[in-house]
Amino acid sequence: MLKKAVMIENYPGFEEISGMELIQKFEKQLRRASARSDGHKIDIERDEVTKVEKIEEHFLVITKNKNRFESKAIIVASGADPRPLKVLGEKEFLGKGLSYCPLCDGPLFSDKTVAVIGGGNSAFEAAIFLSKIAKKIYILEASEKVRADAENQERVKKTGKVEIITNTQVQKIQGKQFVNSLIYEDRKTKREIKLPVEGIFVEIGSQPATSFVKDLVDFNERDEIAVEFETCQTKTPGLFAAGDCNIGKFKQIVTAASEGAKAALAAYGYIEK
Amino acid sequence: MLKKAVMIENYPGFEEISGMELIQKFEKQLRRASARSDGHKIDIERDEVTKVEKIEEHFLVITKNKNRFESKAIIVASGADPRPLKVLGEKEFLGKGLSYCPLCDGPLFSDKTVAVIGGGNSAFEAAIFLSKIAKKIYILEASEKVRADAENQERVKKTGKVEIITNTQVQKIQGKQFVNSLIYEDRKTKREIKLPVEGIFVEIGSQPATSFVKDLVDFNERDEIAVEFETCQTKTPGLFAAGDCNIGKFKQIVTAASEGAKAALAAYGYIEK
Repeated sequence: MLKKAVMIENYPGFEEISGMELIQKFEKQLRRASARSDGHKIDIERDEVTKVEKIEEHFLVITKNKNRFESKAIIVASGADPRPLKVLGEKEFLGKGLSYCPLCDGPLFSDKTVAVIGGGNSAFEAAIFLSKIAKKIYILEASEKVRADAENQERVKKTGKVEIITNTQVQKIQGKQFVNSLIYEDRKTKREIKLPVEGIFVEIGSQPATSFVKDLVDFNERDEIAVEFETCQTKTPGLFAAGDCNIGKFKQIVTAASEGAKAALAAYGYIEK
Repeated sequence: MLKKAVMIENYPGFEEISGMELIQKFEKQLRRASARSDGHKIDIERDEVTKVEKIEEHFLVITKNKNRFESKAIIVASGADPRPLKVLGEKEFLGKGLSYCPLCDGPLFSDKTVAVIGGGNSAFEAAIFLSKIAKKIYILEASEKVRADAENQERVKKTGKVEIITNTQVQKIQGKQFVNSLIYEDRKTKREIKLPVEGIFVEIGSQPATSFVKDLVDFNERDEIAVEFETCQTKTPGLFAAGDCNIGKFKQIVTAASEGAKAALAAYGYIEK
């Protein structure tokens, strides 16, 4: 998610920085530390992990490109992806009016009518951000009431551009080359309603990509990895999980960075023993 | 402690930054956020808190300058100070050869002989740092064995400049205008020994300044405030503790920054309820 963040204002030390720029700074700092250490080089491999196994005291990491890595300890920091709606047209119109990232794609919808799907804080924050760009914004919430906190509800109201529709079950996303409307069912009347919109932002939570460690860790109901908060240790000794992929309540860049540091120190302690 | 750090290399985002410079960035960012918020101004007061009381649902903060602040929630982030030796001459020679901060004061001891008091990781890291500056370094440990981890012991050995003396009980720090020696008792032979040194670095741990909340929180054996790690909540609802002053195992700037963010979000949630 950090990679997609256009402008970050809540990472301590930078008034404003893009996600890409911050990642580059982290990487440069890591490479510098690696270059200066005596024989403790750090390699960065770009590949997708498909499976992690524990064999006696070691871990075996298997990747999509059929690489195999052996290690004494592992820190999983695989983040979380946006949760999809799973409706007709969603995959088809991704990047053609449908987006999971208001900050990235919002600027494409200048003076247009858009819908935000979801009724939590992230949906309301998306609507507030989009209100500076779009002409009109609908917030579509599936249940009776939105879950965003009072401050966000107040801020949304202030924009004067946002209409909240509750009891909506999105059924279908339609268009020609680009999105031109969505169909939802009014869950009270059971009627299908067509809403003309040129942009759709899905903000119904996230799902961590954690299945590759499923035999080694416990999950909560959102597939987040259970950890002991002080060390980020999972139920398997030597296996740690840091950042958005774990059960931590507050998901920010600075909390993820801190968990990375804690997990690294705890992993070091584990290996030393 | 951050204020005293000369060159920080382990805060993610900055390859090298001084403690002062990083604090200034944090403060500027805070003032910018304050200026941009609608009516939620943030005031920064410089004063020393002497007591915090809980009166019904509110907290009352009393300061040295006899200011009184009322609030619904409080985040204690009072850090930790170095633990003093409590020996003769310690106060007298502070800043005149005696220091609690090798990074700050080390450069003053170019080609001189210095002692580091303590046998843990911070003492060994101080000795490694000082080995690039000083001619000769003694590490004085009170017990039979040092507690620094194997890697730090190895690194200290590699410098070729460090002599470790165990079973030492420092008795007195002496000098004229500046430190010129220290007296310790050899705890085995009970003999007093004079060690000529021009610099003394005390590295025997830290002590958080937390007594002003003593009626509202639980402490561990090091006077660190007990918190629930996910939210930094103490045993008193609405009272949070972030950074070096709490029981967190890994004390870094990034972990303190993360705890500040978590405590702020949790305090916000507490006030909203």
